[in-house]
Amino acid sequence: MVKTLEDIMQESNIVDVLRNSKIGMYVYPVVAPEFTNWRSEQNAWRNSVVVYDQSHHMDEVTVEGPDAEAFLSYVGINSFANFGTDVAKHFVPVTPEGHVIGDHIIFRLEENKFVTVGRAPTSNWIMFQAAIGKWNVKVSHDPRSDSRPDGKAIYRTHYRFQIQGPDADKIFEKINGGPVPEVKFFRVADINIGTRKVKALRHGMAGAPGLEIWGPYADKHYIQTTIQQAARDVGVEMHFVGSRAYSTNTLESGWIPSPLPGIYTGGGMMKEYREFLTENSYEAAGSIGGSYVSENIEDYYVNPFELGYGFYIGWKKDDFIGKDALAKLKDAPSNRKKVTFEWNADDVMKVISSSFKPGEKNYKWIDFPQPNYASSSADMVMHGDKMVGMSMFNGYSFNERCMLSLGVVDSSVEVGDVLELVWGEPNGGSGKTSTEPHEQTTIRVRVSPTPYSTEARTSYADSWRTKGN
Amino acid sequence: MVKTLEDIMQESNIVDVLRNSKIGMYVYPVVAPEFTNWRSEQNAWRNSVVVYDQSHHMDEVTVEGPDAEAFLSYVGINSFANFGTDVAKHFVPVTPEGHVIGDHIIFRLEENKFVTVGRAPTSNWIMFQAAIGKWNVKVSHDPRSDSRPDGKAIYRTHYRFQIQGPDADKIFEKINGGPVPEVKFFRVADINIGTRKVKALRHGMAGAPGLEIWGPYADKHYIQTTIQQAARDVGVEMHFVGSRAYSTNTLESGWIPSPLPGIYTGGGMMKEYREFLTENSYEAAGSIGGSYVSENIEDYYVNPFELGYGFYIGWKKDDFIGKDALAKLKDAPSNRKKVTFEWNADDVMKVISSSFKPGEKNYKWIDFPQPNYASSSADMVMHGDKMVGMSMFNGYSFNERCMLSLGVVDSSVEVGDVLELVWGEPNGGSGKTSTEPHEQTTIRVRVSPTPYSTEARTSYADSWRTKGN
Repeated sequence: MVKTLEDIMQESNIVDVLRNSKIGMYVYPVVAPEFTNWRSEQNAWRNSVVVYDQSHHMDEVTVEGPDAEAFLSYVGINSFANFGTDVAKHFVPVTPEGHVIGDHIIFRLEENKFVTVGRAPTSNWIMFQAAIGKWNVKVSHDPRSDSRPDGKAIYRTHYRFQIQGPDADKIFEKINGGPVPEVKFFRVADINIGTRKVKALRHGMAGAPGLEIWGPYADKHYIQTTIQQAARDVGVEMHFVGSRAYSTNTLESGWIPSPLPGIYTGGGMMKEYREFLTENSYEAAGSIGGSYVSENIEDYYVNPFELGYGFYIGWKKDDFIGKDALAKLKDAPSNRKKVTFEWNADDVMKVISSSFKPGEKNYKWIDFPQPNYASSSADMVMHGDKMVGMSMFNGYSFNERCMLSLGVVDSSVEVGDVLELVWGEPNGGSGKTSTEPHEQTTIRVRVSPTPYSTEARTSYADSWRTKGN
Repeated sequence: MVKTLEDIMQESNIVDVLRNSKIGMYVYPVVAPEFTNWRSEQNAWRNSVVVYDQSHHMDEVTVEGPDAEAFLSYVGINSFANFGTDVAKHFVPVTPEGHVIGDHIIFRLEENKFVTVGRAPTSNWIMFQAAIGKWNVKVSHDPRSDSRPDGKAIYRTHYRFQIQGPDADKIFEKINGGPVPEVKFFRVADINIGTRKVKALRHGMAGAPGLEIWGPYADKHYIQTTIQQAARDVGVEMHFVGSRAYSTNTLESGWIPSPLPGIYTGGGMMKEYREFLTENSYEAAGSIGGSYVSENIEDYYVNPFELGYGFYIGWKKDDFIGKDALAKLKDAPSNRKKVTFEWNADDVMKVISSSFKPGEKNYKWIDFPQPNYASSSADMVMHGDKMVGMSMFNGYSFNERCMLSLGVVDSSVEVGDVLELVWGEPNGGSGKTSTEPHEQTTIRVRVSPTPYSTEARTSYADSWRTKGN
């Protein structure tokens, strides 16, 4: 019989289980690793235009029915005011104790039909809530694509592309056969792509303007080639972004994709949820990577205020899961704040060069541009002997010529502070198959704003990053 | 109308065309980039056991009919003596002028049936020779898998696995349900894998013992899981090797996979061949990467003596393509010799650290573990102002904790000599999409034997590699 997450937790400490998961890398599947090369692809999202093929790495959940709005409004923390048809939001559910479960982008397609897109923890939670509640809704789930298709055909319900960058509008105008309707950020418009009428969301990752478009998966090839032809026609150098560069765009824009879902603790509904989740679920089979090891899984959780999502909260809603807990957490002095960590280049070189010394111990290899080696990352950030922060998502930016990571720090930490990130896992590494055996070391990091700003880049970065503290 | 290679060469210098090809990286398709992580996968081929999934990255050509042996013996330089059924050889064709075209592994499956496996240049040449000759043979071609399947199903005629490493025999014995028949190197035996009887070639890449097995592609999943189960049963830590680590195994074993096919020059049959090759062929669409730029495409060619294939040559055969030319080239003082270049770690760090300096020019990024950025690579290796060698295939070995490359050097160069490899392309980089803009620099390399030997590793490598000259 298939075990549940709760069964696993009865047998073992869940931190041990997740830190030693054999699931391997959390990958961005199906999309080619590189179309040109990952440096040029990163450069293109800042300086020309890119296409992100988001058709494969996210779950999609469709919620429809007379109670769709009431149900989702209860499950997420967000205000649902001003949430008309053809509007999207960044949807965040938390546990009754206020721990972040995950986040999706939610689109209202019709009065009674929503689609949400993102990582598995939010999908699973929505499905669970629909299953245990008495809502009049129909929920359908299209899980992300297989991580290792190995030559098998892959089908999704929808294709999904984001076209972003300073030159994006030239392409849209060409594709649409005329100016693209003026729409506000996170509003949806209809545009023409060749013979197809397509939904397009005004969006921007990595700080650049752009559109997210989607439609039936069967149209993917047609849409892709039509966009390509339009770029050629207007003489714009458009780059498709491969799976190696893709996940690093968030380091410049400041969104943390992978907080550990706060679902491993709590009784009542939470226990029921862990009995609902099987051993193969993201929550049970996924992994925690990084130097931070705590016996208490709650130490890996974050709350919405810490991720900067406080202003989403629909306080005026009658009720939603976590409302009471969040009311108490609001303005709590224990809340950390989200920052970008700039990694010191000399220290990064120290780590890399350790893998060029035969017979000596090596530090954890920093894989470029994406060194994360787990579904959720937690690296300790120290001020002297005191842990004052947690680094949660790492990556190299060729645009910044710098390793960056996103995470949270205690309220006492200020932008500009230089701290030490502990790199690598203790005791020679964990049982994860995504790590080679290694020694721990430290890397100096400078606390910087999120999103990583032009000011941070220009005012002190150049001098500090390469010349040390 | 589709252009031919000859058409292209009438319009442009072919070196310019290939150096600025937009084809992108030469990839190892379909197989997942990493199964565990590429460092551990490299380690496993030396210290435990690995499975290389070779089902996708090579062409397969089947030649059958009464003239199959005579035909192939004429096309390749190899002796066909002692080439009975169930024997394999490393098959090398050259042009009438003695330039290497490529190489395949050739298996004699039956008296009148051969299959050859490898890169496109040898496949194309075999098909051309069958087309223009009067041989009674039937040739069929199964090209390598699509480089970017993008979710489409991929089918091949055969699956092909190599199982290699010190622990390989334990697995074979378990799979076979008893000792594996004693077979000599490059001989084929029948073994049992679950319910299937399978052809198995005694083989060894990266210096370790192993078997190469193949069969109908539809059996791939069954064979793969049966091997996996056997490894589990005997308690051996078996690693599948992903596409990122795969191509680096040759750096330890010393085979150069990608000499530029010497088919761009010569009249008569060679011109006819270039009219046979379309603009989409490997030869016309592929790329040359690296610092070496010569207007004369012949400067990129190698001959079989230079690659260490001289002892294959079937001098006693009545005739074969290139026989006269090779007789003249034998022992020619101009022949270069194959070596391994050990890259100086400090200089590698200099290159990497240049991509951590905002606002400064960067050197060509060294992508790990496989920095090649073209179908064929040619980096200049200098002694002072004189070019004395050509580096042809690069990669990082975590086993050696070292960047290595394979190439050829003038006969005057000795093992132990320290030379300078020119890294990166002149004038800011070529038009290839696989390179970011960059500056050229030099990397010291120490000339070492091929295959890269234990002696080379232990006697001087430790001291030199990291401490400079």
